[in-house]
Amino acid sequence: MTEWMLSESEGYDLLSKYGIPTPKYRIVTRAEDAGSAAEAIGFPVVMKIISPDIVHKSDAGGVIVGIGTKESAQSAFNQIVANARAYNQNADIHGVIVENQAAPGLELIIGGKTDPTFGKVITFGIGGTLVELMKDVTLRILPIDEDEIRKMVTDIDSYPLITGYRGSKPKDEECLIQIIKNVCKMFEDQKDLREFDINPIRLYDSGACAVDARIIMDNDIHLLDVVELEPIPPEYFKPKSVAVIGASDDKNKMGYAVMHNLLHFPGKVYPINNKRDTIQGLKAYPTVLDIPDDEIDLAVITVPARHVPGVMEECGKKGVKIAVVITAGFKEMSEEGRMLEERIVEIAHRYGTRIVGPNCLGLIIPPIGLDTTYVAQSPNPGNIAFISQSGAIVNTVVDWSLTKDIGFSFVVSVGNQADLNFFDYLRAAAADPETKVIIMYIEQIKNGKAFMEIVSEVSRHKPVVALKAGSSARGQAAAASHTGSLSGSYDVYVEAFRKSGVLLVHTLTGAFLAAEMLSHPKRYPKGRRAIVVTNAGGFAVLSSDYTERYGIKMIDLPDYLVKEMDSFLPEFWNRGNPIDLLGDATEARFEKTFEVLAKNDALWDMCFIVGFPNNILSSEQLANQILKFSKSTDKRIIPTLLGGASMDRGRHILHSHSIPSFEELDMMYRVVGRLLYQIYRVKAQGVY
Amino acid sequence: MTEWMLSESEGYDLLSKYGIPTPKYRIVTRAEDAGSAAEAIGFPVVMKIISPDIVHKSDAGGVIVGIGTKESAQSAFNQIVANARAYNQNADIHGVIVENQAAPGLELIIGGKTDPTFGKVITFGIGGTLVELMKDVTLRILPIDEDEIRKMVTDIDSYPLITGYRGSKPKDEECLIQIIKNVCKMFEDQKDLREFDINPIRLYDSGACAVDARIIMDNDIHLLDVVELEPIPPEYFKPKSVAVIGASDDKNKMGYAVMHNLLHFPGKVYPINNKRDTIQGLKAYPTVLDIPDDEIDLAVITVPARHVPGVMEECGKKGVKIAVVITAGFKEMSEEGRMLEERIVEIAHRYGTRIVGPNCLGLIIPPIGLDTTYVAQSPNPGNIAFISQSGAIVNTVVDWSLTKDIGFSFVVSVGNQADLNFFDYLRAAAADPETKVIIMYIEQIKNGKAFMEIVSEVSRHKPVVALKAGSSARGQAAAASHTGSLSGSYDVYVEAFRKSGVLLVHTLTGAFLAAEMLSHPKRYPKGRRAIVVTNAGGFAVLSSDYTERYGIKMIDLPDYLVKEMDSFLPEFWNRGNPIDLLGDATEARFEKTFEVLAKNDALWDMCFIVGFPNNILSSEQLANQILKFSKSTDKRIIPTLLGGASMDRGRHILHSHSIPSFEELDMMYRVVGRLLYQIYRVKAQGVY
Repeated sequence: MTEWMLSESEGYDLLSKYGIPTPKYRIVTRAEDAGSAAEAIGFPVVMKIISPDIVHKSDAGGVIVGIGTKESAQSAFNQIVANARAYNQNADIHGVIVENQAAPGLELIIGGKTDPTFGKVITFGIGGTLVELMKDVTLRILPIDEDEIRKMVTDIDSYPLITGYRGSKPKDEECLIQIIKNVCKMFEDQKDLREFDINPIRLYDSGACAVDARIIMDNDIHLLDVVELEPIPPEYFKPKSVAVIGASDDKNKMGYAVMHNLLHFPGKVYPINNKRDTIQGLKAYPTVLDIPDDEIDLAVITVPARHVPGVMEECGKKGVKIAVVITAGFKEMSEEGRMLEERIVEIAHRYGTRIVGPNCLGLIIPPIGLDTTYVAQSPNPGNIAFISQSGAIVNTVVDWSLTKDIGFSFVVSVGNQADLNFFDYLRAAAADPETKVIIMYIEQIKNGKAFMEIVSEVSRHKPVVALKAGSSARGQAAAASHTGSLSGSYDVYVEAFRKSGVLLVHTLTGAFLAAEMLSHPKRYPKGRRAIVVTNAGGFAVLSSDYTERYGIKMIDLPDYLVKEMDSFLPEFWNRGNPIDLLGDATEARFEKTFEVLAKNDALWDMCFIVGFPNNILSSEQLANQILKFSKSTDKRIIPTLLGGASMDRGRHILHSHSIPSFEELDMMYRVVGRLLYQIYRVKAQGVY
Repeated sequence: MTEWMLSESEGYDLLSKYGIPTPKYRIVTRAEDAGSAAEAIGFPVVMKIISPDIVHKSDAGGVIVGIGTKESAQSAFNQIVANARAYNQNADIHGVIVENQAAPGLELIIGGKTDPTFGKVITFGIGGTLVELMKDVTLRILPIDEDEIRKMVTDIDSYPLITGYRGSKPKDEECLIQIIKNVCKMFEDQKDLREFDINPIRLYDSGACAVDARIIMDNDIHLLDVVELEPIPPEYFKPKSVAVIGASDDKNKMGYAVMHNLLHFPGKVYPINNKRDTIQGLKAYPTVLDIPDDEIDLAVITVPARHVPGVMEECGKKGVKIAVVITAGFKEMSEEGRMLEERIVEIAHRYGTRIVGPNCLGLIIPPIGLDTTYVAQSPNPGNIAFISQSGAIVNTVVDWSLTKDIGFSFVVSVGNQADLNFFDYLRAAAADPETKVIIMYIEQIKNGKAFMEIVSEVSRHKPVVALKAGSSARGQAAAASHTGSLSGSYDVYVEAFRKSGVLLVHTLTGAFLAAEMLSHPKRYPKGRRAIVVTNAGGFAVLSSDYTERYGIKMIDLPDYLVKEMDSFLPEFWNRGNPIDLLGDATEARFEKTFEVLAKNDALWDMCFIVGFPNNILSSEQLANQILKFSKSTDKRIIPTLLGGASMDRGRHILHSHSIPSFEELDMMYRVVGRLLYQIYRVKAQGVY
């Protein structure tokens, strides 16, 4: 047996040990004792059957509540035992528990579970029978401090029920916080404690009482520890010579496309093919060992899976630092493939060779002109590192980036992560001076604790944006069939990202917009207060809607600011926020407005600017004013230039100064809203 | 006095009259009578002060509950009166109401309000003190039938509390439905009834009881009736001759840009300018009356507001059918402007001239080459009618459409709607054979009942998509400052659109994607069951997440279907939905899959197809297979071709067959999710 459930009294005893208030109780095995036990405890009492064979006590007639006299306690005993026997005549009955009936109070739930990825997690929310209906629950990954416990309590939508709602008295919040603290300590102390629900715990004007607890122990819990990983030396990702094992002249073969992309590599490139003397115009060699050059830094492997071990052996002997194994047919395919995969890792490690993949699209390092993939067109150099657990998404993103003025410092499709994994790439990107921001597409992470430690460190220096797939049950199943193992709960990922300073987004477009925004030296807005400036009445109205939907706080303009702006704005300006400069707004009108706002930048944390195509103000003029404005204040300036190609020149000016120019109004507020939500945890209607 | 609140007893009497169960009560003015009244009613009773001067009875100590004996009823009387006097010594006390204390039950709320735009609206939801916290309320615009009342009851998230949640007995749903029916009848009958909250109404296993009712009457309610509007003759929007009043050679003047766009008009164009002989190379005339041509169908007016009445008089005399008044400075500006606006309408109507605007960007009818606006580049002809309450949004959308392969049949910026309004344009678009779909950007509608009647009729024949700005309080204020009047509640608009068959979206991009999708002859999916087919594992995972988020129901593949697909798919295909055809999927593999799905199309209502850039399958190949698939089934095929310019050829093929190809995965599911939500009313996490 590795897993068992504590009985009611064992549960109460455990909770009591950690200072969590529970009802007084006694266990009795005779009707007469029930009466005296009830008297000793104090009326009213509840009585429940104790039997390992009866899990759903109420269904068995094994629970009687509201017992007010000694006599009724005695007859309740007999009734409960009779009901239990009738329900299951073979049940092993250990007795009846007589417990004090706790007074009604605010019903809350405190729970704990052990997540396969991130370990012990504590949940808190509205409890009782409404728990499933209201789904008003928040969670944290242990360990957490008191500050975080306080935030957890205020996090739930029903928090007003605790502070006193509609004239009801405030409940004992301090007691609740102490109890959650104690529960956390219990969960951390008890190594075999796998999951529990204290539901409900009743909170009173003063004090509280845990009325029911389902506690499941397991003496076979294995949590992955934080591991010490050796960082990859930076020169590993700066190869000077590349061999393509499986290079081909046959356009239908992968080895053709990979070789084709590598023709642009400025270093040395050696096709390996044991049937031909030249491949795509370059001299070919039968094996890497035949290359006269002493140093081969990187090898790309596209030969069938069964040939990979032999080839890997040769790479090792040649002193190859990185082997990019594009070939599929390993762990993701079959048990045989898994064993083959283990073998190639074992071979590589024997020689100090590190593996990218297998079963991946490959590695692209645009600043050094390296593209080991078979994408149709290589991406441009830039400052974004993109680490993806899907090859198709790399294909798509690279193609899309070419039309969007987006460049990369590093692109990797991680494949099966047989050797190098998310952690290694994250650290490589963190150390890479070309990389200003990191985007990850994640389906699952195995060692959550290690991930949190590494990414927390990285995100302190460089912004990290993540798109996590598998938020739905079906999505998790799809990810499992695609990558070969199940991941932890999405909610726990969300909390892990928040705790580690990773910005979680829901879409690829959002990921790139967020990344570009965060790559600006000002990074996050320092608060939630926003101003919107536009020359389009319609977009002013929509901006009001979107800011509210996405939890961005619009400030009211103080009178002195309105007065100052009255001095140069047309008589009929709206005197409100969004500030509508009207359709005939000139460059000078924007300039003066920006000057006044910069001077008064203590009032706000971010300023959104919404421009649209019109005859009076070109997109260049507006972009230049926005740049000047951004330089004149520490606060974040976030523009959107709406419309088509006629706004491209302005967008390009902003883009070249790391100011993303969103092309869709909703998207701008949505991305910023998500960002603010993760920093300030203000729930908004539309963020989810 | 136009507004007053009913007393408790008046409220109960009104409810009783309509068969809504209320507690038995008596009004007493002496302590002795309180005792006998309580006895006659039956214990326990509640007693409350009756005084027009005491609104918050509880605060005044004017309510005592749980009175169980004759004596305590007498002393409660004295206590209540004493408390009331102490609270407000000048209060006019009419007596004390003694009422039967209703048993506890499920607390619900039934409310009614009079919306300034849409009239009488009924709300239903979870009641008691939790009403504000849970916000679990649904609403309907009157009149509604029983079927709709039943849907209303099942609409709320807490509906399981009514059917019996977690072992509690089911409540008397039939009684509730009858009560809501009666409440609707009461609200429709009572012309002076403005708003009310029956909160709570307690619902029991059998029966119900309205425990408290706040009812506000108003004898000055003015609802706009449905008006009979004369449709504009179609030839009004097919002008053959156009005069530009205020045409100019000065590039800084609006009359320059408008004239410039009209140079492309294939009919006759006459610049009107009383200082010059020619404008932009055309002979100019001092007034429209000086034009030798007998028929001038349309005049565009750009002269300053103060000159518009004179010019309108001339237009009328000349027999101009439509005057597009671009000039601003009317109702939106000042009281004086409002009077000026009334004057020009009065003049126009005297001659039978109809007005577009004033204060608008103008009118564009691309199929006849007419553009009366000052947009930088005229849009292409197409099948979308775009009716916008914002000029800037027309500018933006037109500019954007040029880069997106989008064309228009009709574009109008409605301006102040002094004469022609949303209704007229809607009907014109409905009658126009070029128009396949209508998009509206709406800030506010004055006559909601008329709008619903007209748009319900139009949407039966042509899809109507709306973006309604002003969902937030600040947005409503911004819209008011921008258009000059306040609109009704956003929630009521949402319901009005749903009831009228209008698809409500939240973004401009979404509006155009939805419009294109609905313009396909298959229109709506006939149900909620979806299949996803892709060759990208990552997008399969994200598709699972997005379909769940946006309320799209993914079916499980039946065994016989899996078996049939096993016969031609690679051994390691995922055998699930999303169907992942794997990265090496050829055109033939897609073709066979589509054939099998078409043959089994009784299983599903829509099939999403997600393609991405890769070497094995071009976007043209995929697009052609999608077209073939779409022709082989009645069900909706909804593709997205992700990536950059390399997918444009495939997108264009689909687009030219009215199959929108979304460029963002999230956007596809979001738009379809909103659409399904409005048809099938299945709430989804991310739709709002």
